[in-house]
Amino acid sequence: MTYKIKQLEKISLNKPVMIEGLPGIGNVGKIAVDFIIDAVKAKKFIEIYSYNFPHAVFVNEKNMVELPIIELYYKKLKENDLIILAGDIQPIDEASCYEFCDKVLDIFQELKGSEIITIGGIGLQQIPKEPKVYCTANNKKIIEKYKSKSLSNNIYGVVGPIIGVSGLLVGLAQLRNIPAIAILAETFGHPTYLGIRGARGVLKVLNEKLDIRIDLSKLDEEITEIEKEIKTKTKEFSQLQGKKEKKSETNYIG
Amino acid sequence: MTYKIKQLEKISLNKPVMIEGLPGIGNVGKIAVDFIIDAVKAKKFIEIYSYNFPHAVFVNEKNMVELPIIELYYKKLKENDLIILAGDIQPIDEASCYEFCDKVLDIFQELKGSEIITIGGIGLQQIPKEPKVYCTANNKKIIEKYKSKSLSNNIYGVVGPIIGVSGLLVGLAQLRNIPAIAILAETFGHPTYLGIRGARGVLKVLNEKLDIRIDLSKLDEEITEIEKEIKTKTKEFSQLQGKKEKKSETNYIG
Amino acid sequence: MTYKIKQLEKISLNKPVMIEGLPGIGNVGKIAVDFIIDAVKAKKFIEIYSYNFPHAVFVNEKNMVELPIIELYYKKLKENDLIILAGDIQPIDEASCYEFCDKVLDIFQELKGSEIITIGGIGLQQIPKEPKVYCTANNKKIIEKYKSKSLSNNIYGVVGPIIGVSGLLVGLAQLRNIPAIAILAETFGHPTYLGIRGARGVLKVLNEKLDIRIDLSKLDEEITEIEKEIKTKTKEFSQLQGKKEKKSETNYIG
Amino acid sequence: MTYKIKQLEKISLNKPVMIEGLPGIGNVGKIAVDFIIDAVKAKKFIEIYSYNFPHAVFVNEKNMVELPIIELYYKKLKENDLIILAGDIQPIDEASCYEFCDKVLDIFQELKGSEIITIGGIGLQQIPKEPKVYCTANNKKIIEKYKSKSLSNNIYGVVGPIIGVSGLLVGLAQLRNIPAIAILAETFGHPTYLGIRGARGVLKVLNEKLDIRIDLSKLDEEITEIEKEIKTKTKEFSQLQGKKEKKSETNYIG
Repeated sequence: MTYKIKQLEKISLNKPVMIEGLPGIGNVGKIAVDFIIDAVKAKKFIEIYSYNFPHAVFVNEKNMVELPIIELYYKKLKENDLIILAGDIQPIDEASCYEFCDKVLDIFQELKGSEIITIGGIGLQQIPKEPKVYCTANNKKIIEKYKSKSLSNNIYGVVGPIIGVSGLLVGLAQLRNIPAIAILAETFGHPTYLGIRGARGVLKVLNEKLDIRIDLSKLDEEITEIEKEIKTKTKEFSQLQGKKEKKSETNYIG
Repeated sequence: MTYKIKQLEKISLNKPVMIEGLPGIGNVGKIAVDFIIDAVKAKKFIEIYSYNFPHAVFVNEKNMVELPIIELYYKKLKENDLIILAGDIQPIDEASCYEFCDKVLDIFQELKGSEIITIGGIGLQQIPKEPKVYCTANNKKIIEKYKSKSLSNNIYGVVGPIIGVSGLLVGLAQLRNIPAIAILAETFGHPTYLGIRGARGVLKVLNEKLDIRIDLSKLDEEITEIEKEIKTKTKEFSQLQGKKEKKSETNYIG
Repeated sequence: MTYKIKQLEKISLNKPVMIEGLPGIGNVGKIAVDFIIDAVKAKKFIEIYSYNFPHAVFVNEKNMVELPIIELYYKKLKENDLIILAGDIQPIDEASCYEFCDKVLDIFQELKGSEIITIGGIGLQQIPKEPKVYCTANNKKIIEKYKSKSLSNNIYGVVGPIIGVSGLLVGLAQLRNIPAIAILAETFGHPTYLGIRGARGVLKVLNEKLDIRIDLSKLDEEITEIEKEIKTKTKEFSQLQGKKEKKSETNYIG
Repeated sequence: MTYKIKQLEKISLNKPVMIEGLPGIGNVGKIAVDFIIDAVKAKKFIEIYSYNFPHAVFVNEKNMVELPIIELYYKKLKENDLIILAGDIQPIDEASCYEFCDKVLDIFQELKGSEIITIGGIGLQQIPKEPKVYCTANNKKIIEKYKSKSLSNNIYGVVGPIIGVSGLLVGLAQLRNIPAIAILAETFGHPTYLGIRGARGVLKVLNEKLDIRIDLSKLDEEITEIEKEIKTKTKEFSQLQGKKEKKSETNYIG
């Protein structure tokens, strides 16, 4: 087996909603999800390592080595609990991305999950002043549930194929009759650009529909600080991804 | 197992002929086959998903997500029934293409198929006014059967290797003594060009030999409309394939 | 299993010597080996197909489709019999090349083979007037046996790593204590150049040491004809290899 | 199984420290480790071959063929014995690098190893006059043990991800609670530059902390000779790696 799943805590959740955000265009998904984990004080319960992640280690701010990892967090809420899927990398190729998503769906179903939200970016040629947020899904009902003034479903023609975990999770969920929606915010397509404003757009949408009560004004204050923190990390990503991209041209939209 | 085959209906067919057309040069095969499915009102009976298809989802005209999929349709006819193999993608690499074709041949043999026709394009440096249609096969008899004024077998030197499903299906069929022919129409080799006229040339050939009674005058009327419909979809393909090609240089001739 | 080995005839041989020549730099190995098969009227006894060969078919001079294949021929001689390994392609990547070579060595040992000769080209920046022929091996004795005025062992610094079957067969044979030598002729490194003169150099060396009695004067007459025949085929190869090379940069030296 | 591990000698060691140095940026790790093997007269006890090493053979100075190989040496010392991991290549891709490192860790644990040191280079834009040496680790204690005036731990921001065996060994060791440190010396990032001075910097650090008593003045005398010896070999590497890099863009930092 090429995946190593390390369970840190046995948990039982109430019809959890899973939110996914991994590195991709503008890192919109990663930024949004990392902010939610922080804001709701979510707790890590699963670590996933894999032979099909990049064969490299990162050096963190404590000057220590870290293996590529994807992590699952949870947060108990009044109604649906939350599962959050976060990480610094994506699986390295087609088959490993499919296999990874199916493993995540297995875990999701064991925890009796109710629906899935994936977050990604739509890369534009220039920096959008007010990034629009779009959605697509595997199910009409979940679109009705999340659609709002801030979230358009008129996405056909706006995006091409949604590559990577954010796309495949929604597609593979359909084969299991799990409702799943992809929420994608406009951002600048340049590899080193940070889609924080896009991530803010997504968080605004989620705030309206989920019981996560994220302080958006606080977010705005924090944007400057986040920007600084992520900048160095992102530089690292882009170095690794730069190499990866030359290698495999895996351009994550998800 | 990396292939998931979903049978929608149990069927029994009379010595079916299988026609294959997947994305490739000018999308000649895909356009021809999608038109036949529509024209003869063929019915889908098998869906094939795979870990070795692109790790992405498409957004369709209903703003909904679709997994990469290859589908089998059937149509009962007076003499030989029809199986049609259609889809939006090809398997991602060598081994998965071989494995996929062998799986399709298994299904074909279970249904007591009699012969196989694959459709593809021959990419020219400029747009051909009246695209010529060529054939090659694994068996002299099937060439005699299909050869006509509209279909030349003098293909040696005209094409290089036939890459992808359209080529391999014919080659692997030979190991099972299944007669198989590849019908290839000239088209413009540019990645975004739509080989509709090439596809029309192939349909004309098939119309003469199979009991599919396609209204070619209707086709000519429809060409404009098809062109419009496929344009957006093709843009999506080419985005995905653009990424794929940079990655794997899988240039489909088939 | 990804290899399909089709035995056409059960044979028993007398301490056979195996000669390998597959596509590579200047196609030196392929040209030499195809000429020997013809000259000694060797008989095909094994066909090897694989999921790890290119996922394409060739169109031959009879306008018919041919799967990528590697073939084994034999020829009974007075002393050591001959096994010849020939084909139009090489396995597609590292692992499949290793696996292929180990399968060939299994067959070789079942047939109680005594030694292995692989043939390849050394790509120069310009066309060599009188191509020098070099050898390297896994065993001092086999070098002593084949070394001559026409075959130098001072190869260190002349070639880089020997990539593909011609290299690996010699390396992996060493792990089984099978003496193996690689005979490499200078040729022009350009992808479409045919190393016929290099192949002639190798044949001259083999003629001196093996009981194959190749009529070199006849060869010289035939060079023009061979050149013509191979030209079209090679164009096909290079088209396929051109795509493959962009894809995998597998530059065969062997 | 794609790895072939050949044990040349059964040994038992006293809490050995393992030092790893494989080809990478400036070949710093390889140069350092090859020098230690020579200096302490370490003895080879394990050879590792793999289907996931380059599919090529090298021609050595004796004009003989050598398979790609990674080797383990040992040296008994007063306190902790030494295991040295050396070779001419790295595993070819992500999964094979993970699998290789896990196999090495299995061997390390069977021999009751106590800690691991990996050696690599940090590629600069120009040749550093006095290359600085940095470290990062999976464990604070091992950093405290090795840190010195000559070895800085302020590495965050200095390097990007550490790719290949030098990085992964440290990361995967953490999952087994094995203390592991990566020692990385500045060097020139150009593919043909030899990081001998960087390697000297690493050896100086190791000399201070391990009982290897390397004569650095002798090293300085030998630098010229080593430089000459390695130059031809490195040319070969870079030819192979040049092809590999175009292929897989595996830029080893480790």
